[in-house]
Amino acid sequence: MDEKILRIFGKHDDNYVSGEEISKELGFSRASVWKHIQTLRHLGYEIDAVPHLGYKLVARPDRLIPEEIQYKLSTRSLGNKVLAYESLDSTNNTAYGLAEKGEKEGAIVVAERQKKGKGRQGRNWISPNGGIYLSCILRPDIEPREVAKITLVAAVAVCSSIREITGVSAMIKWPNDIMIGKKKVCGILTEMKAEQDRVDFVIVGIGINVGAATGNLPKTATSLAKESEGKISKVALTKKILESLEEHMALFNKEGFGKIRNEWRDYSATLGHHVKIHCHNEKTEGHALDVDKDGALVVRLDSGIQKRILSGDVTIAH
Amino acid sequence: MDEKILRIFGKHDDNYVSGEEISKELGFSRASVWKHIQTLRHLGYEIDAVPHLGYKLVARPDRLIPEEIQYKLSTRSLGNKVLAYESLDSTNNTAYGLAEKGEKEGAIVVAERQKKGKGRQGRNWISPNGGIYLSCILRPDIEPREVAKITLVAAVAVCSSIREITGVSAMIKWPNDIMIGKKKVCGILTEMKAEQDRVDFVIVGIGINVGAATGNLPKTATSLAKESEGKISKVALTKKILESLEEHMALFNKEGFGKIRNEWRDYSATLGHHVKIHCHNEKTEGHALDVDKDGALVVRLDSGIQKRILSGDVTIAH
Repeated sequence: MDEKILRIFGKHDDNYVSGEEISKELGFSRASVWKHIQTLRHLGYEIDAVPHLGYKLVARPDRLIPEEIQYKLSTRSLGNKVLAYESLDSTNNTAYGLAEKGEKEGAIVVAERQKKGKGRQGRNWISPNGGIYLSCILRPDIEPREVAKITLVAAVAVCSSIREITGVSAMIKWPNDIMIGKKKVCGILTEMKAEQDRVDFVIVGIGINVGAATGNLPKTATSLAKESEGKISKVALTKKILESLEEHMALFNKEGFGKIRNEWRDYSATLGHHVKIHCHNEKTEGHALDVDKDGALVVRLDSGIQKRILSGDVTIAH
Repeated sequence: MDEKILRIFGKHDDNYVSGEEISKELGFSRASVWKHIQTLRHLGYEIDAVPHLGYKLVARPDRLIPEEIQYKLSTRSLGNKVLAYESLDSTNNTAYGLAEKGEKEGAIVVAERQKKGKGRQGRNWISPNGGIYLSCILRPDIEPREVAKITLVAAVAVCSSIREITGVSAMIKWPNDIMIGKKKVCGILTEMKAEQDRVDFVIVGIGINVGAATGNLPKTATSLAKESEGKISKVALTKKILESLEEHMALFNKEGFGKIRNEWRDYSATLGHHVKIHCHNEKTEGHALDVDKDGALVVRLDSGIQKRILSGDVTIAH
């Protein structure tokens, strides 16, 4: 109902709409219109009310609620269903549970904060108010071995969106972090349910420090607010990410990672540097040459031998 | 409590034990002993009761209950916890749910029948009474791309167990079926929850047609009862599978699939044959040469080119 009222405001752009007109168009009483206006105000919408003129939408809130995320969202399916929460243990856990119960591709889960935000390998992701905590349900027709590529595709989508919305030169640290300089501003956690040779669903979880007070964040982290001038709109960034992720996933599903690799290279903070990689208690050190068509990091060891790294934690020697 | 009484019978082998002795040893009344004897009889245990002599265990039931599966089971952890049900939708679904809630490696789920037994790629697995429906929770330290090998390891464990217990020449059809001649007697469904580069848990689901009336099974299927002489003990076969699976998984975790590959080759119904493979709407046809160290099927196409097949449905031209 709130959404219908917002749509009527939208049709009238910056002009006043009378309570009578809204009540006629939606077929409910003027008292009921007033009640819904109150609800919208409670959600953070600024709505002027002037006798004889009616109501006017003055400002939309920068909140991750369905009404805002879906407003002029240009995706085909991603974000068609938005499940928004004040607080969750983990948006990935909630999205995973929904996907297990059959939730379709494109549904997303967002929260204002996470109590047990998750990072890779069972680590925490500190998730205070002011960040974007977004999990997307995808059902790509791929094998489990290909799922690491989804993380790289998502990293490209998120990195390009951050650049476009904020103007900040965000970079990708292989495999799943978005960096500004030496500090982490975003992490991506991909989880899946799969059979031996078929993925049932993938949850792409994206955590971004937007306006979060940097005092609450680890020393190795920063926020977009701190790194950029001007206020960042969480809603605008979220919408851009959804549009970019859908576009890049369509390209990936059609052409594979190969087509996205060039863009990945452009954003890479890893290639061309001396790196140390920890993986399953094994340490590798060398010069990061490239990412191959399977998403593996190609490293030239000191011995001259080239090695493909499929997963691990990277430290970059600056 | 029932288990404690069974243990006392075990200590006395084939001899009578007086109700007084049991009651003393366990510290409860003779009326209570009698009640538990009744419970055991209800579970299928044949127990003689003779005045002045006491109770004697005459026969154990061939039922997949914890008391029987764990009796003289020689595994280190697999089967340490047995969750047994009369009927489930799917033992894999129940095991998956338990693993998500943190159930440890080694717990198993068994059911007398499944209402919605699952096969690969969303297919059904017809699961009437008389079969073994067993799902094992494993937490191997592997990457998602390695999970297909677990299916091959499980196939070797199950195939060797069927051979040992029944004497039937069971064979493995790549990747996940156990065959007797041209007919399927067992299917293996491996499912997992994973991050991009780390498996959280794997559920190895094993469905075997043991004594199931073959009338209830598809035409392409058979049962161990039909193919072998003499009665097959579901309990003995289940225990052997648990022991063999644990042993083979230990070898796999330590040495990789390479060490198990020779045994796999010995049991293979696929190698050396002309095969047709359907995978993701793609058809491949050729001579099945080998399975490689990654578990891929190596096929020589008519053009002479060798191709590695990572997944698919195989038809063997006999």
